[in-house]
Amino acid sequence: MSFVDLGFARVDTDRRTRRGFPEVIFCAGKLPEQVLSIARTLLDADGIVLGTRATREHFEAVVAEFPDARFHTAARCITIVRQSMPAMVGQVAVVCAGTSDIPVAEEAAVTLDTFGSAVDRISDVGVAGIHRLIAVRDRLESCNAVIVAAGMEGALPSAVAGLVSKPVIAVPTSIGYGASFGGIAALLGMLNSCGSGVTVVNIDNGFGAAYAAANISRLLSLQSAS
Amino acid sequence: MSFVDLGFARVDTDRRTRRGFPEVIFCAGKLPEQVLSIARTLLDADGIVLGTRATREHFEAVVAEFPDARFHTAARCITIVRQSMPAMVGQVAVVCAGTSDIPVAEEAAVTLDTFGSAVDRISDVGVAGIHRLIAVRDRLESCNAVIVAAGMEGALPSAVAGLVSKPVIAVPTSIGYGASFGGIAALLGMLNSCGSGVTVVNIDNGFGAAYAAANISRLLSLQSAS
Amino acid sequence: MSFVDLGFARVDTDRRTRRGFPEVIFCAGKLPEQVLSIARTLLDADGIVLGTRATREHFEAVVAEFPDARFHTAARCITIVRQSMPAMVGQVAVVCAGTSDIPVAEEAAVTLDTFGSAVDRISDVGVAGIHRLIAVRDRLESCNAVIVAAGMEGALPSAVAGLVSKPVIAVPTSIGYGASFGGIAALLGMLNSCGSGVTVVNIDNGFGAAYAAANISRLLSLQSAS
Amino acid sequence: MSFVDLGFARVDTDRRTRRGFPEVIFCAGKLPEQVLSIARTLLDADGIVLGTRATREHFEAVVAEFPDARFHTAARCITIVRQSMPAMVGQVAVVCAGTSDIPVAEEAAVTLDTFGSAVDRISDVGVAGIHRLIAVRDRLESCNAVIVAAGMEGALPSAVAGLVSKPVIAVPTSIGYGASFGGIAALLGMLNSCGSGVTVVNIDNGFGAAYAAANISRLLSLQSAS
Amino acid sequence: MSFVDLGFARVDTDRRTRRGFPEVIFCAGKLPEQVLSIARTLLDADGIVLGTRATREHFEAVVAEFPDARFHTAARCITIVRQSMPAMVGQVAVVCAGTSDIPVAEEAAVTLDTFGSAVDRISDVGVAGIHRLIAVRDRLESCNAVIVAAGMEGALPSAVAGLVSKPVIAVPTSIGYGASFGGIAALLGMLNSCGSGVTVVNIDNGFGAAYAAANISRLLSLQSAS
Amino acid sequence: MSFVDLGFARVDTDRRTRRGFPEVIFCAGKLPEQVLSIARTLLDADGIVLGTRATREHFEAVVAEFPDARFHTAARCITIVRQSMPAMVGQVAVVCAGTSDIPVAEEAAVTLDTFGSAVDRISDVGVAGIHRLIAVRDRLESCNAVIVAAGMEGALPSAVAGLVSKPVIAVPTSIGYGASFGGIAALLGMLNSCGSGVTVVNIDNGFGAAYAAANISRLLSLQSAS
Amino acid sequence: MSFVDLGFARVDTDRRTRRGFPEVIFCAGKLPEQVLSIARTLLDADGIVLGTRATREHFEAVVAEFPDARFHTAARCITIVRQSMPAMVGQVAVVCAGTSDIPVAEEAAVTLDTFGSAVDRISDVGVAGIHRLIAVRDRLESCNAVIVAAGMEGALPSAVAGLVSKPVIAVPTSIGYGASFGGIAALLGMLNSCGSGVTVVNIDNGFGAAYAAANISRLLSLQSAS
Amino acid sequence: MSFVDLGFARVDTDRRTRRGFPEVIFCAGKLPEQVLSIARTLLDADGIVLGTRATREHFEAVVAEFPDARFHTAARCITIVRQSMPAMVGQVAVVCAGTSDIPVAEEAAVTLDTFGSAVDRISDVGVAGIHRLIAVRDRLESCNAVIVAAGMEGALPSAVAGLVSKPVIAVPTSIGYGASFGGIAALLGMLNSCGSGVTVVNIDNGFGAAYAAANISRLLSLQSAS
Repeated sequence: MSFVDLGFARVDTDRRTRRGFPEVIFCAGKLPEQVLSIARTLLDADGIVLGTRATREHFEAVVAEFPDARFHTAARCITIVRQSMPAMVGQVAVVCAGTSDIPVAEEAAVTLDTFGSAVDRISDVGVAGIHRLIAVRDRLESCNAVIVAAGMEGALPSAVAGLVSKPVIAVPTSIGYGASFGGIAALLGMLNSCGSGVTVVNIDNGFGAAYAAANISRLLSLQSAS
Repeated sequence: MSFVDLGFARVDTDRRTRRGFPEVIFCAGKLPEQVLSIARTLLDADGIVLGTRATREHFEAVVAEFPDARFHTAARCITIVRQSMPAMVGQVAVVCAGTSDIPVAEEAAVTLDTFGSAVDRISDVGVAGIHRLIAVRDRLESCNAVIVAAGMEGALPSAVAGLVSKPVIAVPTSIGYGASFGGIAALLGMLNSCGSGVTVVNIDNGFGAAYAAANISRLLSLQSAS
Repeated sequence: MSFVDLGFARVDTDRRTRRGFPEVIFCAGKLPEQVLSIARTLLDADGIVLGTRATREHFEAVVAEFPDARFHTAARCITIVRQSMPAMVGQVAVVCAGTSDIPVAEEAAVTLDTFGSAVDRISDVGVAGIHRLIAVRDRLESCNAVIVAAGMEGALPSAVAGLVSKPVIAVPTSIGYGASFGGIAALLGMLNSCGSGVTVVNIDNGFGAAYAAANISRLLSLQSAS
Repeated sequence: MSFVDLGFARVDTDRRTRRGFPEVIFCAGKLPEQVLSIARTLLDADGIVLGTRATREHFEAVVAEFPDARFHTAARCITIVRQSMPAMVGQVAVVCAGTSDIPVAEEAAVTLDTFGSAVDRISDVGVAGIHRLIAVRDRLESCNAVIVAAGMEGALPSAVAGLVSKPVIAVPTSIGYGASFGGIAALLGMLNSCGSGVTVVNIDNGFGAAYAAANISRLLSLQSAS
Repeated sequence: MSFVDLGFARVDTDRRTRRGFPEVIFCAGKLPEQVLSIARTLLDADGIVLGTRATREHFEAVVAEFPDARFHTAARCITIVRQSMPAMVGQVAVVCAGTSDIPVAEEAAVTLDTFGSAVDRISDVGVAGIHRLIAVRDRLESCNAVIVAAGMEGALPSAVAGLVSKPVIAVPTSIGYGASFGGIAALLGMLNSCGSGVTVVNIDNGFGAAYAAANISRLLSLQSAS
Repeated sequence: MSFVDLGFARVDTDRRTRRGFPEVIFCAGKLPEQVLSIARTLLDADGIVLGTRATREHFEAVVAEFPDARFHTAARCITIVRQSMPAMVGQVAVVCAGTSDIPVAEEAAVTLDTFGSAVDRISDVGVAGIHRLIAVRDRLESCNAVIVAAGMEGALPSAVAGLVSKPVIAVPTSIGYGASFGGIAALLGMLNSCGSGVTVVNIDNGFGAAYAAANISRLLSLQSAS
Repeated sequence: MSFVDLGFARVDTDRRTRRGFPEVIFCAGKLPEQVLSIARTLLDADGIVLGTRATREHFEAVVAEFPDARFHTAARCITIVRQSMPAMVGQVAVVCAGTSDIPVAEEAAVTLDTFGSAVDRISDVGVAGIHRLIAVRDRLESCNAVIVAAGMEGALPSAVAGLVSKPVIAVPTSIGYGASFGGIAALLGMLNSCGSGVTVVNIDNGFGAAYAAANISRLLSLQSAS
Repeated sequence: MSFVDLGFARVDTDRRTRRGFPEVIFCAGKLPEQVLSIARTLLDADGIVLGTRATREHFEAVVAEFPDARFHTAARCITIVRQSMPAMVGQVAVVCAGTSDIPVAEEAAVTLDTFGSAVDRISDVGVAGIHRLIAVRDRLESCNAVIVAAGMEGALPSAVAGLVSKPVIAVPTSIGYGASFGGIAALLGMLNSCGSGVTVVNIDNGFGAAYAAANISRLLSLQSAS
């Protein structure tokens, strides 16, 4: 198994072979030149780069060398796509409970798009007005998987899981105040969901939810092709 | 303002005048003879006794002297009613998310009954099958207030609050496992409810929720009588 | 049941019919133009707008289009009132333990006012000088409900509940230092209140307490009218 | 959408149609006769019963009426299978870090088996001897999904996710001592996994992980059949 | 500075000279013969023994050798007094909020008595009926110091501190349920007390509070004698 | 009992009579004009003002009207002394574990000085070099009480309590990093101190510790005078 | 690298070669026959068995087959030594703060003894009587490393580290009450130790501390032999 | 035992004699002139100064008087070396899981270098690509000790401990997001490590880990010299 040693980082160029998707750059806490240097290595290896939790400084370092780099402001992501990932069958729903959860949902959507999955975005269907959710039930059921981002009490994944048969991946967001404790209330709500089979990723981890959902679509695509 | 000093306790015989409802005995941590002694004092003052968190030992000490005492097993309550509280207008709904929340709901129901309020009990309408809740919407709306007991992620009060116009009082229960942490997950879920106006009492505190709901019915009855 | 889909938000224009009060805009985390857009929709539907946790930037976006919008600085609220809510019987007391709790109390007061309830504000009656509280007992007793905002150890709701017969709704505030943990000490104090029937809302959630209190006044007004 | 109202419970007989798998009985906190009564209803509706967190008392109440009921001691599960779920393509790996994690892994394995999925059980491959894990890499890669149960520091899902391309569903177990805090250390470790796409269920929730994994196999089977 | 090495323990026989009071045996977690052996050493050195958190087994081992040993059941203390500590001026008030706090208050009272201080016990004066506390204000003010034991929300020390000029030492007790978390709510309430100068000891630590109060009386006695 | 109602505050002008020391202004969260207004009222009533947690803005508002106001930068305190408190017998030691704890110790020292107590400041005697503490043992023993401010693991109060006979009042400070959690580690260390009779105040609460220590000196002074 | 697959466990028979010490059996949560089976495998591979957290049931299963097995009651350990580990140079000090910490210290001592290290046991030298610790300073300094087990506030490692030059390995114990939280207070105290270079193991983990200390002695022995 | 009293600090000039390494300045929370003053004292006593958690302001105050002072930006350390510590045998590995952990690793590396130990830096070998770690196994095994800095789930120390025989000292870093809680997830992961003998220091405490590792090298050097 191969890797490229940049001194400050050992880029796992074997990742795509081993895991199905290439390595992604978690930009937070890295210097712009470090992000650029890793991007360069990944572009060589895979022809595709996704950087999450990126600042505009990270982007400027990258775009100076790779003018085809794009910055997704709401999602805080950098992408460079020279060799697209193969398009996968079906689509993934990205649902959010409230307007404030949109940045986390966008990180998921950009990741899905980069990984070759179509996305159906649905916003502001929190349980305080459950008729808004019931109105989109068929759209949800028609997807391969449903990502649900919610803050505050994190009740939405339970309600979604009660309505559809597709895998539900819950992302607690750090939205809320008082005793929401930066997403802990939502996280606990989701872990204790009465909706069977809901799985959970870290607070604000839109990327991780998208990775898991895309992987299901990837397996379905392989099955479909076989 | 009066009280009766029993040495180990100062019974607040002025409570009913001042607060609308008589003092109630929180039996946990008290010796059976202490519960009996306080019951004797309250019976003298108010003609009515409610003991919560009572064990069978507490009850046996009380019933030996007061044969008309009743033990409500599921609710863990003792009652002696010689002088009923005046019947209040309307009723209070006591809803629980799952079968395991019934003991907490029963503590609420016995308290309401003792305080003069009719009760409408509704069980097992958790959000994993939201159609079960929608089916009882009109029953909920017809009450003065709705008490909602739920464990696990505590999402039910939000869903109820989204459907009806009546005050919703949420009781987190210690039901659940793993990261439910004895009711903390449900408590946080309820405090962070996206359903406006939901208020919350302590974990498993069916009595407190019933007290608050009964007080609303008491005010409505006074208004009705005026 | 209706809603208006703005893309980023689904405004619940059915809320007032279903719940008695119109939808309110929680401005935190929303862009100024999003707040404006929702305000426009709600004004159409209900003729009244309340935005909480608003910044001056939110207000400026709104007032540019609706010159009759008002900004309540201490309460951090925006209001536009073209069609007043019907005035309700009685009033609600808004009590705070110390001077620093005033912003939370003001959020409650503005909400009550917008919803049609008269307000009696009482400041700085913490338990360290209990005679200051006893001096206002009759004012408290004459209200429909009492909202008590307190930080630090959150003891005031217990003391109030011991003195009056009206519903007490406790709001922990994030005021304090050291082991107050941003309001957790007050929150726990209130949840564990020895004052029967005290109910609690989230830390700093003056709006939620006001909603619950206004709802009691609304029911009393309906009863009174019937 | 249908349900059966047993008074203490509203059995969701519509669940299988809506969600792909029938309702399952969470036995903890329920009386033996309640479990029996729900089992009777589900058997009527679906021809298959799975009860989790069951005690021997629960089982004895069930087996007295349904002699073909089985008790899975290690997994603490009751099953009655009159109408098997259709066998799904492929299998699911159930991996555990240490011998003490086996009960949780067994709950997952019994659930998978009941839901129609083949299972590959792999025990005691914790990271303290990483060569034991590398030795089973091909077995893991050949499955549809990998469930990883681990206590203590919960590091195994990260290591597994680094080696294979299939979805990894992590189950923290309450195994450990001292600062493992009943599974919190493992839960946090898994939520913060550096292995992209790991999703997490509640502490000791073998059932939930199995549900999510079986759902992936169900979708693959549907795709395969189409 | 001297000590006696018993192998399993090094008894600090210099303690009384250095600190004003002799060493006390914390019996919890010690074998009965260990408690006996330390008691023997302390009796030799100081003529007085106090063992806290003692079980009946501890007592039986001690009384078999020292027939004048006494067991204080409610306080869970063993005492042997052959050489009384000199009587100190004044007395210390030991106040408890509710009946359930009495065991902790008794540990304080027995410690004070053993150390030579008179005690004024006052029970069940919680803030839910503040008139019960105001009725004893003069008794409190006449003491050298006031120990206040309270569970639940721990509000009583603040109220006491607001009424009297004497040092208030607060003892949170583990009484309560739900979100009292074994005394944490009371502990936080007391640490955040708005009553200036309240100091706090560990949960259920009646001994520690009594030690601190007795030390104030000791200093006042020395001052008085000078 | 009297108070002055300023609208936003009810100044407790009866405090000194009732409690021995005048009311003190906790400036944090108050507007400069509010601090000034309260200061004016207290100066009228008592001739002495102490404001804690004051910013330079608070001071500037006060000094503009009362040119004899002083700002104690390290202690973050404002004082105006027109009528000194009577000097008390003896002195109080204010000890800190490290250089970084000095601001908290200074808040204590300024409070003591304002209340009429002499102060002996001792810095940087943490347990990592225990000989530095042993060197000052006699100075500590000669005081009426010892205040010990420490962050990190908060071990110093235990060591001090082991060496001297005087009351030890521990102040955890928010100094430290990593798992010190803003003073929680020190707070827990002090609450669990093996040094009998150590009492604790809130994190960084130098004022509270000084109040308690001054009160002991006040009682000794009264005893001395009698 | 080798291992033996027992089905329920994969015994790491390569451990001693790779890590210097053989695999040890953590008995908690394992069935007696599982412990026996692993013991049999390890005895074959290494000629030496150490089982920690063992119950008498575990021991009886083992001693029935291996009559030379020993049970160390206080330490809760099983040992079978057919081929001793080579004796290492020097010794390791095992210090405990109080009598109640002895079980944890004994687990460390038995581990050290099994691994070939001499042990110097020192009990009850807590900081409340610091002269007891200073009296053993030379014994501590003469060892290769010092293990310090302490509960309550966990201050002893800091004091030891301040006195000697040898590595200090701290073991928090779950001894204490109230806010010691089962060892968390001691754990935090040790992590925040002002004594440079103190390292910490899990609560009650005497084995882990001994492993680390024995490893230092092993390296010193190798250096000495070279 | 000597110390130098600077008023605000008591510099422990006896430290090197007693503990093997000189006192180090923890700069956080100290004024630049305080750091300078302590540096002056230590330079006099030991000829070597190490300041950790230093800002550029601290450095500028020091370098103005001591032009040979160096600032290590990544490590946030100041060093002045006039009299080198004697070079120790062997080297210490400083490993970090990801690029973002480098600052903590650098604090360790600068400390080791200042204390006379050679350092082998190894970056970005997290468990998500375990082949990167296996590739450096021989380098790790050839060192005296291995420091492992990791954030997120903190799994790397377990993996390292499973591969090599040398002491592993784990440093949790505050790197991560969501439920990493500023390093708590990593800290708990490391405390619960299944890798026997891993010891842990405080979050981000690279200095403490280096001190412990250097001390092992110091003992090996002494043994080697004897």
